Amino acid sequence: MQDSQNLLAARQRLLGGGYRLFYDQPLHVVRGEGVWLYDAQGQAYLDAYNNVASVGHCHPAVVAAIASQAAQLNTHTRYLNDAIVEFAEDFLSEFPPELRNITMTCTGSEANDLALRIARQVTGGEGIMVTRWAYHGVTSLLAGLSPALGEGFQRGENVWLIDAPDSYRTQPGAWVASIAQALEEMRQAGVKPAALLFDTIFSSDGIFSPEAQRVQQGVALVRAAGGLIIADEVQPGFGRTGSQRWGFLRYGVTPDLVSLGKPMGNGHPVAALVGRPELFAEFGRRQRYFNTFGGNPVSCRAAQAVLQVLRSEQLQNNAQEVGCFLRQGLCTLAAQYPVIGDIRGEGLFIGVELVLGHEQKTPASQIAAAVVNKMRQRQILISTTGPQASILKIRPPLVFRQQHAELLLQTLGQVLEEVTA
Amino acid sequence: MQDSQNLLAARQRLLGGGYRLFYDQPLHVVRGEGVWLYDAQGQAYLDAYNNVASVGHCHPAVVAAIASQAAQLNTHTRYLNDAIVEFAEDFLSEFPPELRNITMTCTGSEANDLALRIARQVTGGEGIMVTRWAYHGVTSLLAGLSPALGEGFQRGENVWLIDAPDSYRTQPGAWVASIAQALEEMRQAGVKPAALLFDTIFSSDGIFSPEAQRVQQGVALVRAAGGLIIADEVQPGFGRTGSQRWGFLRYGVTPDLVSLGKPMGNGHPVAALVGRPELFAEFGRRQRYFNTFGGNPVSCRAAQAVLQVLRSEQLQNNAQEVGCFLRQGLCTLAAQYPVIGDIRGEGLFIGVELVLGHEQKTPASQIAAAVVNKMRQRQILISTTGPQASILKIRPPLVFRQQHAELLLQTLGQVLEEVTA
Repeated sequence: MQDSQNLLAARQRLLGGGYRLFYDQPLHVVRGEGVWLYDAQGQAYLDAYNNVASVGHCHPAVVAAIASQAAQLNTHTRYLNDAIVEFAEDFLSEFPPELRNITMTCTGSEANDLALRIARQVTGGEGIMVTRWAYHGVTSLLAGLSPALGEGFQRGENVWLIDAPDSYRTQPGAWVASIAQALEEMRQAGVKPAALLFDTIFSSDGIFSPEAQRVQQGVALVRAAGGLIIADEVQPGFGRTGSQRWGFLRYGVTPDLVSLGKPMGNGHPVAALVGRPELFAEFGRRQRYFNTFGGNPVSCRAAQAVLQVLRSEQLQNNAQEVGCFLRQGLCTLAAQYPVIGDIRGEGLFIGVELVLGHEQKTPASQIAAAVVNKMRQRQILISTTGPQASILKIRPPLVFRQQHAELLLQTLGQVLEEVTA
Repeated sequence: MQDSQNLLAARQRLLGGGYRLFYDQPLHVVRGEGVWLYDAQGQAYLDAYNNVASVGHCHPAVVAAIASQAAQLNTHTRYLNDAIVEFAEDFLSEFPPELRNITMTCTGSEANDLALRIARQVTGGEGIMVTRWAYHGVTSLLAGLSPALGEGFQRGENVWLIDAPDSYRTQPGAWVASIAQALEEMRQAGVKPAALLFDTIFSSDGIFSPEAQRVQQGVALVRAAGGLIIADEVQPGFGRTGSQRWGFLRYGVTPDLVSLGKPMGNGHPVAALVGRPELFAEFGRRQRYFNTFGGNPVSCRAAQAVLQVLRSEQLQNNAQEVGCFLRQGLCTLAAQYPVIGDIRGEGLFIGVELVLGHEQKTPASQIAAAVVNKMRQRQILISTTGPQASILKIRPPLVFRQQHAELLLQTLGQVLEEVTA
């Protein structure tokens, strides 16, 4: 194991300019277990941030599934193999019956990129709507509709940016009105709509949960104009929102396509696109789609193991209960620390918006950065989100229990005391 | 384990229209070891096709590296971690000294897509040149420059298709002339060139190895016009061509960016883009690039294990020797069977072009399909390539030995006897 300073220097020399590290004082991790990450000195950090190791870092059932299948067979999907079929059958049982087909990819980016390829081909349209601070992935196409990538962002062709359903700063219905306006602009520009693509908890926009009725209205507008609905469940999916397995279920709508990713293999690179079979059939009539690593037996067994753990350890239920406890504790802190302007989220996906003044609601970005770094110094890992990075993002593995929430709340109280003193 | 017929029906129902299977009678694989794949009845198949499990199916050193690291830590690159830095240092030592930076992705598609994003941003140009039957991946951008995807292919904006350096059907220099013509067309259209992207063994075009001097001429033309050179080493890389570790080295040129994929983790989803540090720096100044699973410690340890096996088992050397033996045997068959029009390739990446008439060179696509299927019936796995699927593609794991080559040659002789009788 290398000294952290040498490691940092070597990393910068070898990996180059695109890479970023978390925290003013980067964390050098060497081991993970459950909700804990350990640094090179053996110090434990409470992971209240990582949604990939969703069933807990290095869950033994997932590790065993990967090790066992990797020793037996790992090849592509142009041969018949049990693993992908067994996984597909089991996994699709978690979705509404209209969504009966799955295509496996390696990353959420590949899933979203494919969703848009299908939408554009099947609808014959080009127009894509995403929220103003969306993040949907790293391919060329997705970078052009992910303003959250920051100042280098260049909006892609036929991409319309719409308002997020910001329950803290805008009126209910602003999101729907923004969809209507985008559709009208497309009509005037002679661009046929292809899809509304949205993260069902609006993770990068600031973590929002619009009313079901509003989402239904927005969806109806898009469909009436001939566009498809693509739910990006890469972050909210797999039970994280507590009340439901998938974020879109909270809104009583069934998307045409659903992209999955991050927690799907607990860190193993596996992702997927689920959707209506007629869309895949129409796409498949004109195009083949072959992803060399996508749907290989190891990835499928990893994903199957994650699904089984999610069920057997009732982690969705835990997300609901501990998320509720956590939000209650945050409300108590909010009563003491007026820097907390709003507490949002579902299950174990929580946003705590920090502001200067409850009237002005000025984003407290510097304070948020200070909180995140001071939490890290106290061995608790969180981050920020939102266009101004002023919203604390608390998004732990789903094995996060009440005692972990208590530790987080206690420490956050100390840190808020310090930064607002 | 399911019955193959039930499995096929379930697969078609669940996976939908985009998926394809190899062979008239699909193969149901359950286990792999070295150059062998085993079906559900325990029948062994000699794998002379798969370039992903390049160090042999289920190589124990790679399996152990994956299992061990998966049990210890699997997280993203926003923390310091030894695995990515150690791998990057070791891996980059395999490249010319100008190529000193690496960005890790999960798939070759992600690597090529990123290469083009970087090229377009850094050059300020848009024009991309690829060969007429190129295949570079499955993202929206790459699908628009991968004519090998077939009839559904729609050429992307600012994509120019150039001739492949077809040594069997065109004059030497046709490729260079085609580059010059594309550049001239760009100039007339007011499109600034961004990159020439080429597979260094022209896998999907039909497996070609142009003279070094020609490649140098083409590269010089592109650079003089301000474009970058991107070598797609996803297929030819990692010693497969025998004489060199990377396909581009045969031509005495150093690309600006090199994409890696398929064999990099022996089936584990890991890929990368290697290149000149000033390109990554320039890109990173304006954009961040974060790939959630890209460069995770498990992927890095898998890739490191592959690299070590490649070295310790001297597999590049084996590719050279057995590839040479195989081509000699194919030449002997060509003397007996005039349906063999041309034998091409390097190391263990071999193309055998089948034709009707050595003068007319009519692509013998149906015969090629029959050969592939009859080989499969005799438990030897190969496939076809080229615009007419008339070229037998022989591209086994690099642990393919002389006795395996002998078995392949003997069986191919029988099959050629049968199909040309």
